[in-house]
Amino acid sequence: MTADSRPARYAYLGPQGTFTEAALLTLPGAAGAEHVPYSTVPAALEALRTNEVDTAVVALENSVEGSVPTTLDELATGEPLQIVGEIHLPVSFALLVRPGTTLDDIKTVASHPIAQPQCRRWLLDNVPDAEWRAATSNAEAAQHVADGHYDAALAGSFAAARYGLSVLAEDIHDVADAVTRFVVLNRPCMPPAPTGTDKTTVVAFIGEDHPGALLEILTEFSVRGINLTLIQSRPTGAGLGSYLFWMDFEGHVSDARVGEALMGLRRICADLRFVGSYARADETRPEIRRGTHDTDFTEAAAWLAAIRTPGA
Amino acid sequence: MTADSRPARYAYLGPQGTFTEAALLTLPGAAGAEHVPYSTVPAALEALRTNEVDTAVVALENSVEGSVPTTLDELATGEPLQIVGEIHLPVSFALLVRPGTTLDDIKTVASHPIAQPQCRRWLLDNVPDAEWRAATSNAEAAQHVADGHYDAALAGSFAAARYGLSVLAEDIHDVADAVTRFVVLNRPCMPPAPTGTDKTTVVAFIGEDHPGALLEILTEFSVRGINLTLIQSRPTGAGLGSYLFWMDFEGHVSDARVGEALMGLRRICADLRFVGSYARADETRPEIRRGTHDTDFTEAAAWLAAIRTPGA
Amino acid sequence: MTADSRPARYAYLGPQGTFTEAALLTLPGAAGAEHVPYSTVPAALEALRTNEVDTAVVALENSVEGSVPTTLDELATGEPLQIVGEIHLPVSFALLVRPGTTLDDIKTVASHPIAQPQCRRWLLDNVPDAEWRAATSNAEAAQHVADGHYDAALAGSFAAARYGLSVLAEDIHDVADAVTRFVVLNRPCMPPAPTGTDKTTVVAFIGEDHPGALLEILTEFSVRGINLTLIQSRPTGAGLGSYLFWMDFEGHVSDARVGEALMGLRRICADLRFVGSYARADETRPEIRRGTHDTDFTEAAAWLAAIRTPGA
Amino acid sequence: MTADSRPARYAYLGPQGTFTEAALLTLPGAAGAEHVPYSTVPAALEALRTNEVDTAVVALENSVEGSVPTTLDELATGEPLQIVGEIHLPVSFALLVRPGTTLDDIKTVASHPIAQPQCRRWLLDNVPDAEWRAATSNAEAAQHVADGHYDAALAGSFAAARYGLSVLAEDIHDVADAVTRFVVLNRPCMPPAPTGTDKTTVVAFIGEDHPGALLEILTEFSVRGINLTLIQSRPTGAGLGSYLFWMDFEGHVSDARVGEALMGLRRICADLRFVGSYARADETRPEIRRGTHDTDFTEAAAWLAAIRTPGA
Repeated sequence: MTADSRPARYAYLGPQGTFTEAALLTLPGAAGAEHVPYSTVPAALEALRTNEVDTAVVALENSVEGSVPTTLDELATGEPLQIVGEIHLPVSFALLVRPGTTLDDIKTVASHPIAQPQCRRWLLDNVPDAEWRAATSNAEAAQHVADGHYDAALAGSFAAARYGLSVLAEDIHDVADAVTRFVVLNRPCMPPAPTGTDKTTVVAFIGEDHPGALLEILTEFSVRGINLTLIQSRPTGAGLGSYLFWMDFEGHVSDARVGEALMGLRRICADLRFVGSYARADETRPEIRRGTHDTDFTEAAAWLAAIRTPGA
Repeated sequence: MTADSRPARYAYLGPQGTFTEAALLTLPGAAGAEHVPYSTVPAALEALRTNEVDTAVVALENSVEGSVPTTLDELATGEPLQIVGEIHLPVSFALLVRPGTTLDDIKTVASHPIAQPQCRRWLLDNVPDAEWRAATSNAEAAQHVADGHYDAALAGSFAAARYGLSVLAEDIHDVADAVTRFVVLNRPCMPPAPTGTDKTTVVAFIGEDHPGALLEILTEFSVRGINLTLIQSRPTGAGLGSYLFWMDFEGHVSDARVGEALMGLRRICADLRFVGSYARADETRPEIRRGTHDTDFTEAAAWLAAIRTPGA
Repeated sequence: MTADSRPARYAYLGPQGTFTEAALLTLPGAAGAEHVPYSTVPAALEALRTNEVDTAVVALENSVEGSVPTTLDELATGEPLQIVGEIHLPVSFALLVRPGTTLDDIKTVASHPIAQPQCRRWLLDNVPDAEWRAATSNAEAAQHVADGHYDAALAGSFAAARYGLSVLAEDIHDVADAVTRFVVLNRPCMPPAPTGTDKTTVVAFIGEDHPGALLEILTEFSVRGINLTLIQSRPTGAGLGSYLFWMDFEGHVSDARVGEALMGLRRICADLRFVGSYARADETRPEIRRGTHDTDFTEAAAWLAAIRTPGA
Repeated sequence: MTADSRPARYAYLGPQGTFTEAALLTLPGAAGAEHVPYSTVPAALEALRTNEVDTAVVALENSVEGSVPTTLDELATGEPLQIVGEIHLPVSFALLVRPGTTLDDIKTVASHPIAQPQCRRWLLDNVPDAEWRAATSNAEAAQHVADGHYDAALAGSFAAARYGLSVLAEDIHDVADAVTRFVVLNRPCMPPAPTGTDKTTVVAFIGEDHPGALLEILTEFSVRGINLTLIQSRPTGAGLGSYLFWMDFEGHVSDARVGEALMGLRRICADLRFVGSYARADETRPEIRRGTHDTDFTEAAAWLAAIRTPGA
């Protein structure tokens, strides 16, 4: 429940039956909440910004439904939103058909354009003569199959029930172990309390293009023993040589080493955006390097204070 | 002409009328060559690997037609191909209709799913009630309009003539100055001769996940004054904490500073793939730092030789 | 005057007429104070530690009278003392003789053993047949000349008057522009107020001998734009691979960038000793790098606080 | 034997009975050679430069007889000489007296000025009333005792026999485990063959004083996994902010990683002097970091060559 006693509202990339909805359903708070599908990632984020919803779930890495660059760019340069959680969902495609359909019956296979190449080899081996048809999402493809427009859809098996379809084959994607990473977004807020297995995301903007710019940024992390888990450079669109770096790294903004590193970035970058601190989906505990525990920072600060003002 | 006197064959992401075809047409060698459309990026690359074609042109960054991560992953981990050139093409969407159609007539607008959000504001302002329909590519959307299935398509204005359509509005994308970067691919070969304004692409694989891994890699560049222009981290799929870094940087593999940096990466990385050295599309001349010209390397090597073997 | 109304007492390396006394006499507080000569640097420092004197002046770099390593080692590993000032004194040797002595009369020249090689060429050219005699200090050599034991002494020209000698030749040292650097020492105390042209000295102990140890230390300075002006490594005597680094650098312990760097060193070193912050003798103003002013640190801290506790 | 069949000639800091002579006597080649004492370090080095001798042995670190800065400065900026070996000699002072003298008889103790503070506590405890007298060297002090001028000398026990003296007490220095490091010098020559436990010495000159200059230099070592064992900064005398760094590090100039690092320094420094590669006195074997063996360099060079010229 939210403050005004209406059920919490979650935006997601719809329609029903997408991987994003499946990710949303794994959230503890999702039960009893209202789930609102949007047809694009920007639309879902705009709904959050304008208070239509309280939370949004969107894909950030390796999405098979939406363009990851879109999410990165929206969070990096759009009106600020904050990541408060992440979800890892295995990519697992199934072939959905109307009950009774067999492989031999399949003349057309529909899916989002990004899903097709991921199942290419399976399709070549099993339905070599089927033609592929584009859909806005895999869930929409399933709807088209249910409506009789196409014979089969590539989608998550969880979408079958929603559209009255059967799973003719499971795990038909070519690359095993692929995972899509989704993020849970709020409007800017107090970060969730640290769990000990946290990750922080920032976007750093550099104003000039020189050989040491990225090295300077990474040194701010390295000198405090902080491990990066993701780095993506993107042009900012503000002219030649103007870049932003999206960086995910281990630790929580309330950690002393993270705080000092962020202040360091803040001082040297043209701009710095804090995008969130949140529990890691994989619950990996960081190895905290000698000299970078909170207690080390506290002891060093006391030591410095005693030098600056002896006897105080 | 190729060695066996048949016209050179270029693969691209089709059908006719895509931005990729428009990029291909800017190549000097394209005139008189055969242009072969493929329905997906992996299919175009596979055609190159299997000698069906001699060259492939695919989008690498900010594509509005295909998934950029797909291209990165194919070039990073698929059977090796080599970048021999790059092309920058401004992203410029037009609204294509059958001749005579007016804005008021438009009930449906078709496009590739990635194109729609890029024109969202214009569509909202000008055809607020039109419904959007997915297509495999913007060019396919144009074909659907020509066939009468939909009323309008989002596509490059260059696609109009091919499909017998009119340009009802130009430059309707929301973000000005967006550029898509395409790469020209060959099978592994002698790199093109240096032009003085070159770029080199490598993929570095790190086997272990420690705070200094990326810093070590960047230091190999920095210590030789080499400026990175793109860095993207991606999981390799080979287990937790196993990453690859796609890196574009200034300079040509034949430059001494680039050669030494590449050997340094080769020595410290679990694996290193050379993806190509090629002329920059923007013809930006690198600032070569004091002490990193080829002549500096030559002088230093002579100095060392004289120390190791005096009088030789 | 000191607290108990007796005149302030300054220890220096004697006897009267040494370069160290000449350095001491340049101090504003020296007039009206009691100057106490000691025969060795350790004796002068011990007098300060045991409250026999209030201040000590000793050579730190390029001394022509005492062993610089002795001073470094005493300050690095002896009972702590604190540098509160520094003095630069040009090295300028004169040839002191009894009034009436000519070059032809000189059969013996006395000096501290470190002074002789510094005047070697002049002696060879002007008194090639004179024999050299060792003295504990150049001032003692002057005393020996006054006593008639030797014919000439190498010493500062300021020593002539004290010992009733004449200056037969000035500036007879072989290397022009040599400077000896002296430090003014107190017992541990509140550092002198910053002047804007300050220097800070620390001693860092590293417990293990690995390729990156020194680089880690220097990175703590570099990442905050702090320029080192002196670095000396010395074995600590505590076993193989155990080193200390004496480091002088620009800035005052009360500067934000210096404080954060010191805390960083404190966290990563086996031990860290603060030896003092004090006005530079050469009054060189440091170039403060973008992002490292005190105001940059204050702004970054406010930014971080707002993220950690929005609306606070 | 030397080329012209005369016995090899070794210069050392004399007179007979110095620690330097003791160091020289540990050299395999010293037996059967002529040993020529010089009264100062610069004189010994000049004798080598002018072909009076073939080899010189001088103290480099922690000397109790000569100024270490003198040796550093001579080797860094004088006419070039080359280190071809090093010797570690424990500092061990004895109290030398004429036979029959007892502690109670001792009124005067002579030594080089640097030796006295090293035995201060022992002297205070055992001959508290004895006065100290300066000598040019500890050996000269022994000569003075033999001549009856003084009662006792601080010197190595090996000096007793030469001067007909007795050892009244041994190991009387205050700090245990002190070691003096001597270097064996030749005129510039082919470096001795690598032994697997080698050290290399260079002097790097930097022309400008900026925060990153030393860090840049150390990065050239660090990026190739090379461990520094000594670093000393010194002003070059060529004006404000002009420094030189004396650096000893693990490895031999014939090692690939050392060669590449030296070329890197050569390229970025205002000047670089190679001072020698030689077997370590302590025979410590370096830990060679992953990716920095000679075989790693060879493999990487082959890899690069295959990229630059495929099929060659």
